[in-house]
Amino acid sequence: MSTLRDELEGLYAEYVDCLDGGELERWPEFFTDPCLYKIIPRDNFERGLPLAMMLCESKGMLQDRVEVLRGASVYAPRALRHLVSALRIDSQGPHVAETARSGPSGMIRVHANYAVFQTQVDEPTQVFNVGRYLDQIVREDGHLKFREKLCVFDSVLVPGSLIYPL
Amino acid sequence: MSTLRDELEGLYAEYVDCLDGGELERWPEFFTDPCLYKIIPRDNFERGLPLAMMLCESKGMLQDRVEVLRGASVYAPRALRHLVSALRIDSQGPHVAETARSGPSGMIRVHANYAVFQTQVDEPTQVFNVGRYLDQIVREDGHLKFREKLCVFDSVLVPGSLIYPL
Amino acid sequence: MSTLRDELEGLYAEYVDCLDGGELERWPEFFTDPCLYKIIPRDNFERGLPLAMMLCESKGMLQDRVEVLRGASVYAPRALRHLVSALRIDSQGPHVAETARSGPSGMIRVHANYAVFQTQVDEPTQVFNVGRYLDQIVREDGHLKFREKLCVFDSVLVPGSLIYPL
Repeated sequence: MSTLRDELEGLYAEYVDCLDGGELERWPEFFTDPCLYKIIPRDNFERGLPLAMMLCESKGMLQDRVEVLRGASVYAPRALRHLVSALRIDSQGPHVAETARSGPSGMIRVHANYAVFQTQVDEPTQVFNVGRYLDQIVREDGHLKFREKLCVFDSVLVPGSLIYPL
Repeated sequence: MSTLRDELEGLYAEYVDCLDGGELERWPEFFTDPCLYKIIPRDNFERGLPLAMMLCESKGMLQDRVEVLRGASVYAPRALRHLVSALRIDSQGPHVAETARSGPSGMIRVHANYAVFQTQVDEPTQVFNVGRYLDQIVREDGHLKFREKLCVFDSVLVPGSLIYPL
Repeated sequence: MSTLRDELEGLYAEYVDCLDGGELERWPEFFTDPCLYKIIPRDNFERGLPLAMMLCESKGMLQDRVEVLRGASVYAPRALRHLVSALRIDSQGPHVAETARSGPSGMIRVHANYAVFQTQVDEPTQVFNVGRYLDQIVREDGHLKFREKLCVFDSVLVPGSLIYPL
């Protein structure tokens, strides 16, 4: 037996485990096709400015992004670690929650806070990026998938290396 | 279907979303009236010293605090982000848990760890305040509310700007 | 009513509350006897190197470690605070989950991310240690216990004071 919250907590756990484990090739599998994936500074988001650090609208674009990252030799020697907390789940009442459980038409909105820590070789662990996930999740063939995932991060200052998925 | 833990996780998610979103006017609604809200350094708490950084004993006092914050022009340009983790739920057994679900008489104790990150304009995100919530929660008109919320923070050093609710 | 995830979240909450509260004497009670407790840098773990910062294979060894810590007067004046997030629960399907609920033979694997913050007197709170728990949990006399707990931390750089359980 598990609740909708249990399932969603499980989804986020798998998602961040995939990223922290460096299994980027599996990352696009967490999304529907088409989808919307966006990393955007809070300031731009709140002012409605379109400028995003990363913007993908399909699985193919997500896969392209992975290839670019794999090719960027500058990237390797560091570890990322995500914490996710405070999931606000809006499945528009029990009715839609049931729909979400039984068919592809139901949609679940989840807002959550995240913090990502970065550890580079011979350096102490640092706070890398902190912000909020604004997600839309649907059930596809029995699996919960992100139809939309916005990563709205708090800093205006953009770390030079922020090309990695959050 | 949801469990008591699901409900409590949802309560904390809404609470920190309210604070991180800057919707201070909604903040007092998370409390009963009267209530006890206190921000206190761990050292004082453990020695039984009464000195607190913030102390409110009613909704009116919480609202006053919000007005003071709104008037403090020094405050605006920064983002706060809460993570909450490790909820210890003590509803004194299944019987009281049921009471808590069905009537106002039941009381639920929750202990949790929190970390708050602060991002100021043109600065990297920093750890702002870390500590423990020691809460008493009751059900009022079907909604879980804080009857008591102690924020016991770990640092002795007090950040100059710690006038914001935690 | 509670789900397996609820129970596990409760276990981790009690575990970190024990450590953060400094109740080290209770710490060995979270483990089976024999057990495996290990703190190991990620780099060593991934290369299969045996070198660990701490290694205990029984309750007695855990208790010894507590006595050593109690004797280390260098240790006292600081606070630790754990956040645990993203629990991946693998109970090998509902069948084994049920076994885990009803008897000692079932085993539950949990992977989770953790972040530990340290606050020393007159210093701001800092990120102390970040990493991953790789745990095996069994039910013993109705209580969930760690049969194996690996704390794989991200930094190669080892803080001088990392002799405290994670």
